[in-house]
Amino acid sequence: MYLVIYDISDDPLRTKVAAFLKSKGLTRIQYSAFVGKLTSSQLRDVVAGVKLLTRGRDSERLNVQVFPITESQYEQRTVIGKTYGEEDVVVT
Amino acid sequence: MYLVIYDISDDPLRTKVAAFLKSKGLTRIQYSAFVGKLTSSQLRDVVAGVKLLTRGRDSERLNVQVFPITESQYEQRTVIGKTYGEEDVVVT
Repeated sequence: MYLVIYDISDDPLRTKVAAFLKSKGLTRIQYSAFVGKLTSSQLRDVVAGVKLLTRGRDSERLNVQVFPITESQYEQRTVIGKTYGEEDVVVT
Repeated sequence: MYLVIYDISDDPLRTKVAAFLKSKGLTRIQYSAFVGKLTSSQLRDVVAGVKLLTRGRDSERLNVQVFPITESQYEQRTVIGKTYGEEDVVVT
């Protein structure tokens, strides 16, 4: 399982990255965070795709981090506040 | 090790939460993400503190998630784009 978190100050670029992550089957758990299961080749696709989308783009803040996590870590996480829309739908 | 990610649309509240997380020894790795080592009682402090700061606050978006991660997962993560200021300083 992977957790993708990003900080992209350029609105159109951020929207593109979010749409791309969603198209790769990841589930949005926060405004700038997605989770989902990825095979190693799917992971390579996601990383390559984000690099392509963001290369040469001059967004003041542009940082994307992809963490390997386990399902139990995902389930053990603590959530405070309002649940994001799609949070409980985990892509299998 | 823990990864704290948050989506708080209310600027002053977001600033308070960031200052609080930093005061608990966590390191900022992205505009809305911190990491660091926490004992279980420190974790309880962090969760209780964030709950206290955010309770009753009517921020349109208000979601904080605290993931248990391992140091090797942290080291294995993929980072794309500009490194956030304090990224390489991991709180030991």
